[in-house]
Amino acid sequence: RRGEMAKLTQLIDNEVFRAYATYSAIVLLKMMLMSLITTYFRITRKAFANPEDTATFGKGESAKKYLKTDPDVERVRRCHLNDLENIVPFVGIGLLYALSGPELSTALLHFRIFAGARIFHTFAYLIPLPQPGRGLSFAVGYSVTFSMAYKVLKTAWLL
Amino acid sequence: RRGEMAKLTQLIDNEVFRAYATYSAIVLLKMMLMSLITTYFRITRKAFANPEDTATFGKGESAKKYLKTDPDVERVRRCHLNDLENIVPFVGIGLLYALSGPELSTALLHFRIFAGARIFHTFAYLIPLPQPGRGLSFAVGYSVTFSMAYKVLKTAWLL
Amino acid sequence: RRGEMAKLTQLIDNEVFRAYATYSAIVLLKMMLMSLITTYFRITRKAFANPEDTATFGKGESAKKYLKTDPDVERVRRCHLNDLENIVPFVGIGLLYALSGPELSTALLHFRIFAGARIFHTFAYLIPLPQPGRGLSFAVGYSVTFSMAYKVLKTAWLL
Repeated sequence: RRGEMAKLTQLIDNEVFRAYATYSAIVLLKMMLMSLITTYFRITRKAFANPEDTATFGKGESAKKYLKTDPDVERVRRCHLNDLENIVPFVGIGLLYALSGPELSTALLHFRIFAGARIFHTFAYLIPLPQPGRGLSFAVGYSVTFSMAYKVLKTAWLL
Repeated sequence: RRGEMAKLTQLIDNEVFRAYATYSAIVLLKMMLMSLITTYFRITRKAFANPEDTATFGKGESAKKYLKTDPDVERVRRCHLNDLENIVPFVGIGLLYALSGPELSTALLHFRIFAGARIFHTFAYLIPLPQPGRGLSFAVGYSVTFSMAYKVLKTAWLL
Repeated sequence: RRGEMAKLTQLIDNEVFRAYATYSAIVLLKMMLMSLITTYFRITRKAFANPEDTATFGKGESAKKYLKTDPDVERVRRCHLNDLENIVPFVGIGLLYALSGPELSTALLHFRIFAGARIFHTFAYLIPLPQPGRGLSFAVGYSVTFSMAYKVLKTAWLL
């Protein structure tokens, strides 16, 4: 088992793969943070989706008024869904990109810009900042993933 | 090609990676099951989102009444979305964790608790069980992914 | 670093892994395309979800009328969510499948059918085609992922 371990850890010892692992973990944790922010707004705005979640606030009819949508909760949920739509392709394509043998500096440039763009996107969505702030940060992250996909397809192409 | 195959299968022969592959496949299949449950409730509750899906039940105006939302359908859809928000980070971070060289026993502990928590979460959401059943199972799964992310960042950190 | 690189590129030189990388990148790019189609419909239908997105069309009360849902926008969003629910399991299980040592011809058969089914699914959803066109393409993609999961669990099983 030790021998196999050694072979496996060769992957995590590779610098490009370490950079990929670091940035992937960071953007996935950022995405997971949206769940906690949703819960925070659901509790402070008293706006829930499930009857069983309102039981703390009263019984029967008096609890039903907390089954509602709230603009702040819906905003966080849209931001969370946007993360799923953009961070998931980054993690999938980024893994293939890291295995396609890019230069460390080029890879770091891609990962740093993507992570920065998505963190800015979250602030732009939640504050909210006036457009085109959010739109541009979406476009920057999108372009980084597209650029990595181009390198993957150029290296791996086998239909 | 055989020679390369041999190298590749070293990964799947590693016990930690085999455990990761097993639990990842199980939780992804569990997530996919939500699609079938949604379809089941859409058909039995006759509640559809697309006009073309109601054609079986009549033509023109008579079919329009089946374009509606149903509480049971919406509940399954929320459960499915919650799976996407939690199982996807587990699969992504879990892969990096499996490659970061954890002890087999520690890795199995993480994977088993996560899979158990998410299967319980589905029952808690669909039955539904009174809170904090669902909330706690969400928190347990969340903590497992967070713990794996900590190990990944500690091992791979390269910004 | 060069030495490690060489080991890494062994993975991307493997034909099954190259096929997986190609088809994964293609279906993830197809999924990302849904964001652009949503934006296109939001602008042409003038139907936005965030007040700050309507600022181009006027100030104050006159901009509020563009905060609405539109059937075409909602249709693209449902198609995008369906992609997340189906393409994400394909990418995750497909990676494990590619590492489980399948024959190249068998792997290519799986990847080609899945990609074809999901591209057809998008057209069936957006045109829209009468059922069961969309339903069948969903079922075909679903079955491919299920078949790959079966191979993964048979090869890797370790609970």
